[in-house]
Amino acid sequence: MVNVVKIGGNIVDNPEALDSFLNDFASLSGPKVLIHGGGKEATRLSKALGLEARMVEGRRITDRQTLDVVTMVYAGLINKRIVAMLQARGCNAIGLSGADGNTIAATRRPADPVDFGFVGDLVPTGINVGFLSGLIDQGYTPVLCAICHDKNGTLLNCNADSVAGNVARSLAGVMSAAITFCFEKPGVLADPDDDSSVIPVVTGDMFAQMRESGAVAKGMVPKLQNALSCCADGVEHVRICDAAALLHPDAGTTVKI
Amino acid sequence: MVNVVKIGGNIVDNPEALDSFLNDFASLSGPKVLIHGGGKEATRLSKALGLEARMVEGRRITDRQTLDVVTMVYAGLINKRIVAMLQARGCNAIGLSGADGNTIAATRRPADPVDFGFVGDLVPTGINVGFLSGLIDQGYTPVLCAICHDKNGTLLNCNADSVAGNVARSLAGVMSAAITFCFEKPGVLADPDDDSSVIPVVTGDMFAQMRESGAVAKGMVPKLQNALSCCADGVEHVRICDAAALLHPDAGTTVKI
Repeated sequence: MVNVVKIGGNIVDNPEALDSFLNDFASLSGPKVLIHGGGKEATRLSKALGLEARMVEGRRITDRQTLDVVTMVYAGLINKRIVAMLQARGCNAIGLSGADGNTIAATRRPADPVDFGFVGDLVPTGINVGFLSGLIDQGYTPVLCAICHDKNGTLLNCNADSVAGNVARSLAGVMSAAITFCFEKPGVLADPDDDSSVIPVVTGDMFAQMRESGAVAKGMVPKLQNALSCCADGVEHVRICDAAALLHPDAGTTVKI
Repeated sequence: MVNVVKIGGNIVDNPEALDSFLNDFASLSGPKVLIHGGGKEATRLSKALGLEARMVEGRRITDRQTLDVVTMVYAGLINKRIVAMLQARGCNAIGLSGADGNTIAATRRPADPVDFGFVGDLVPTGINVGFLSGLIDQGYTPVLCAICHDKNGTLLNCNADSVAGNVARSLAGVMSAAITFCFEKPGVLADPDDDSSVIPVVTGDMFAQMRESGAVAKGMVPKLQNALSCCADGVEHVRICDAAALLHPDAGTTVKI
């Protein structure tokens, strides 16, 4: 079984947490894939370069200069730092953007109604599963950032949760797969203010009810939709948890159809 | 035969020259590897971030922040830009730092007599030739920057000419190999001020004489030493030329033992 694991900015931004997480990740036996998000380094670099963050509907506009910044930070600094740290732990990591080996194709989001610039949405059949499974079969651990490409020479900033979900769903078509979405909470919470209120299992029906009753926090909706899509497409184990719980399979929230 | 090609900052910095070079490179039939240098983007970014360039004996000191800058620019911005451009040309490029797949191991340069910081020298046996030749056999085109690693978690800034030479020499052990070092001149010049004075062939004996008589420009000495090492280690064709002459095998200077 291939373990697909996604980490976000809260881990990437915290050297101690990253160090500890990579110890755990490297110790996972068997094939694995890591997908990492961005973190605050890109915002810091943008500010230092005098680029103004332009937000529309809470989302960042990725103009040409911002694309350069996220490419530098996600595909360069963070990706290579993680790869070097994994190599030091005996894990033969290989860092990839979506352009490398044509791993992940995306399409630029339409400019109407809002032009988000160089932001891409994943193409359902856009994962080069042959390339990824080939690397995995040879013992390599792909480490993916969310910078993808349109196959026509343009890099696109995509969502790391979507990349992780699509990679797991695509791999599930050729091998047994599990996915763990790590984030800053211990799991899906019944009470967003109470970290001890983790819901151990969320099913599709429960999600529909929770959504109707407003019991699910706004930011959790796309995460749970993504997780449920993984279940629907044959990913055998789907979990949302704190990165520190990677090696504790019973921790966090398991998502089932 | 695998064609190993090295380009420097003069191409990387010039969008039109890069575009034209990548057209030529993509049209090369058969297996190929591209190694790219840095260019002025890292200097620009360092300045924008207020980092002072510290030079000793004409070489840049790579402190921690400068290492981050070159990792971002070389392994992120430039590498992924080239990969996306090659993908658009139907060339299945895969961008790699030396840490990815443990492709290139280096050792940090000793701090005595000058501490250059995170600068690495290549280890003779440090090229993961099995990984590179495996990618090549599968039809991928590795695109390498000169950010390598020490296998203990530290990235190191290395010399792109050395990376190119070492890759060609290592590949020559498992397949027929050629290398083209592209730079800003049309070849090795008899008169550094006259671009029409290209010396068509330089042998080891000629180099020794030229060096003794002072006929070889300072910057050409390590380039020719590197080229001659390639010949000595079985690289079949070794050429130094302008990037625009990539597809003209008779242009530039051929180096022979």
